[in-house]
Amino acid sequence: MRPRPPAGSGVDVFFHPRGVAVVGASRHPGKVGHTVLLNLKRWFRGPVYPVNPHAREILGLPAYPSLLEVPDPVDLAVVAVPAPLVPRVVDEAGRRGLRGVIVLSAGFREVGPRGAALEERLVEAARRHGLRVLGPNCIGVYSPSTGVNATFFVPGRQGLPGPGPVAFVSQSGALGAAVLDWAEARGVGISRFASLGNKADVDEADLLSYLRGDPETRSIALYVEGVDDGPRFRGALEETTPVKPVVVLKAGRSGAGARAAASHTGSLAQSYELYAALFKQTGVVPASSTEELFDLAVALALQPPMRGDRVAVVTVGGGSGVVASDWLSSLGLEVPELSPETQARLRRVLLPLASTRNPVDVTGSATDEHLAEALHVVLESGEADGILLIPYFNVPGITGELPEKLAPVLRRAREEGVPVVASVTGGARAWGLARRLEELAGVPVYPGEARAARALWGLRLYARWLEKTGGL
Amino acid sequence: MRPRPPAGSGVDVFFHPRGVAVVGASRHPGKVGHTVLLNLKRWFRGPVYPVNPHAREILGLPAYPSLLEVPDPVDLAVVAVPAPLVPRVVDEAGRRGLRGVIVLSAGFREVGPRGAALEERLVEAARRHGLRVLGPNCIGVYSPSTGVNATFFVPGRQGLPGPGPVAFVSQSGALGAAVLDWAEARGVGISRFASLGNKADVDEADLLSYLRGDPETRSIALYVEGVDDGPRFRGALEETTPVKPVVVLKAGRSGAGARAAASHTGSLAQSYELYAALFKQTGVVPASSTEELFDLAVALALQPPMRGDRVAVVTVGGGSGVVASDWLSSLGLEVPELSPETQARLRRVLLPLASTRNPVDVTGSATDEHLAEALHVVLESGEADGILLIPYFNVPGITGELPEKLAPVLRRAREEGVPVVASVTGGARAWGLARRLEELAGVPVYPGEARAARALWGLRLYARWLEKTGGL
Repeated sequence: MRPRPPAGSGVDVFFHPRGVAVVGASRHPGKVGHTVLLNLKRWFRGPVYPVNPHAREILGLPAYPSLLEVPDPVDLAVVAVPAPLVPRVVDEAGRRGLRGVIVLSAGFREVGPRGAALEERLVEAARRHGLRVLGPNCIGVYSPSTGVNATFFVPGRQGLPGPGPVAFVSQSGALGAAVLDWAEARGVGISRFASLGNKADVDEADLLSYLRGDPETRSIALYVEGVDDGPRFRGALEETTPVKPVVVLKAGRSGAGARAAASHTGSLAQSYELYAALFKQTGVVPASSTEELFDLAVALALQPPMRGDRVAVVTVGGGSGVVASDWLSSLGLEVPELSPETQARLRRVLLPLASTRNPVDVTGSATDEHLAEALHVVLESGEADGILLIPYFNVPGITGELPEKLAPVLRRAREEGVPVVASVTGGARAWGLARRLEELAGVPVYPGEARAARALWGLRLYARWLEKTGGL
Repeated sequence: MRPRPPAGSGVDVFFHPRGVAVVGASRHPGKVGHTVLLNLKRWFRGPVYPVNPHAREILGLPAYPSLLEVPDPVDLAVVAVPAPLVPRVVDEAGRRGLRGVIVLSAGFREVGPRGAALEERLVEAARRHGLRVLGPNCIGVYSPSTGVNATFFVPGRQGLPGPGPVAFVSQSGALGAAVLDWAEARGVGISRFASLGNKADVDEADLLSYLRGDPETRSIALYVEGVDDGPRFRGALEETTPVKPVVVLKAGRSGAGARAAASHTGSLAQSYELYAALFKQTGVVPASSTEELFDLAVALALQPPMRGDRVAVVTVGGGSGVVASDWLSSLGLEVPELSPETQARLRRVLLPLASTRNPVDVTGSATDEHLAEALHVVLESGEADGILLIPYFNVPGITGELPEKLAPVLRRAREEGVPVVASVTGGARAWGLARRLEELAGVPVYPGEARAARALWGLRLYARWLEKTGGL
């Protein structure tokens, strides 16, 4: 068999197709071949062609008996036919001149030797024709800015995030879908999502290489259970992290987890130490849970890397300032006492009971202006490499205008290379205002001091890598 | 001065007053003395008496010139007058025969020696009359089942959780308020909330002793920056943990955090090691963040302690099963392979592609019934001391009826002493269904595998303590 193509080659077709055929398109609601056609019809701005030898029309679109008869323009097929038929479909896709195939069908390597043989034939056909295959046994591709929803996500049951700066690549389809559902509710925007499934052809390295050059992607989040081609993965990471931050959740870190991963995707029970070393050597920011994967990816997409260890905590609540300081310290960051000059400047603009040492506690009697002034003085001082902001929205002096009032100083901080993240503890009103802070000023907001501190840690870790490799 | 009363004595008046006077009640919206009166008027079912020498009526309630003239029944006063006037008010409360005073006013020990002298006079008056004082410099008391909202929470800005099994005691007022706001949005029910402020009289030990005997409280969550009387605190913990679980977030664990705590509440910079040792010796479940404080308190309120280390993971998504296994292992719990007999039983009721080893992965093609059957077989096997359930609500076969369908087996697990917690990753629809699972079956639901695993860890830690002390 011909070798796997160089990482990234031909992957763009999955995110920027000119026309998409759905092979195995179905008239029956609930079937995968129906749902994916429904999703493409609703989302995709180019032509969508159902392929089904037993139908003349599906969902109001004319159907074609085979891929060979689909008219132009078409360069991508999404396949939802039974596994034994898939190799022939890939062959037809090649003969028709398509550049990519997404195989949603299951029943390949994950079910045993017969499925593995089918998977080999599938790859052979793809290599013969020089086209790329995503999957099989995957949940598809989602790229909101280009209108690609080539997934079988059930409408109404699955949240779909809007366009944004984070790319998300998941070996597991169900986990990917659940995380996208969460991302939509959380207000995280996605540039590209791809579920890799069995990785018969397209793998993590392909996506990394493609996303490295994708102008819409500012950070890359990766969920991995196991990698088949270590050197290829390492190579892609080495080329990507100097350009864009990569956050990886490697599941199967423990013995029990590795055994579970082997059952789930057939991933080899590789030692996590090998991965940990690889991540350290290549500047990957490691995550330990799905929420942390996104917490870090969002911070790295929205804020600059943190060029030093010194964090100023600016808070409306003293208790939260204490908890945040504990977390920052436990992550190896510093919360140094501010200089007498800076403290004097703070005392001039804050209430008499405010604390100025660091944390800067403006107190629950503070107004929007006090908080803005505190940020301003801290930023001016040059004594903080990063800022952890803790606004409380339930005290009398902090109003619904806070996001507007803080936006200028927060934007300036970002321009000056001083990252700011915020922690908000509270209910629906607090979260609404927190999201506005994120939208207006690009400050990522986390529920709780621990996660905000961890985000700064990620920004610091990535900066250390860039410093080491001369990128900063 | 007379000594501090025994822990817990007379504390019930804060949660079950017969009538409440508001000293410093104000006609001016936005003033603390206005907001607290508004809150009591709306919530409290007994009589509420504004005290203000310059008003005849406030918010439609007849006002009294001093506490001495307030009619019966009254046993509690909430005080919002300037600090220098407070000692006299406490004296009047004693002369009038009141049993408790909540001092919201600030300007005591936290502002320096003059405030400290005022605070001493306040305590002297309280001891002389044998009444208990909460605060000063606190945010008050909230007890939804008895209609006590003696706080200056701004209505519309502050979420107020409904009644429930978790008691929450916070040294910090603002942090307490923010956490209650979050609890309301999260659907966590609260039995009692008290903000301790300067702890001039009533302290953590008082609340622990009271809550130990409170039938509405099933677990106690405590936010502490520093404790003044170590032996008294230890004594209260020793008597409480054999009866009810206590979760403590001790802030100021790091050097930076301890310095912040000293600025915030004047707490001594005590070494965290001392606290860690105390918690270990007294069976306290330690938390490291505000969200973890509640994650653990909710688990301990709703589920039985976990009598062994063996956890079965029952999941709709393989990837989440891997992540959960990693977390459980890293917390010292086991995810053992199930016996051949149990796996055979599972294979009989699950889909062919399901994994049965543990995690039990019913797969994204499973139905509600498959998940119920898997739980049933795992519970029957006796091979799991606890269960981590991961339902996905975005796959085709899992319906909105899942909570109803799982409730019987989940309730049985609890009755048999096998705790179950769930992890849900997803958006609004998923969370709505997750909450129904919590309501119907008492299964606490967490956003993400890491936090669910940590909750089981808390249930195991508490069980180990009970085993050691003969309570289990």
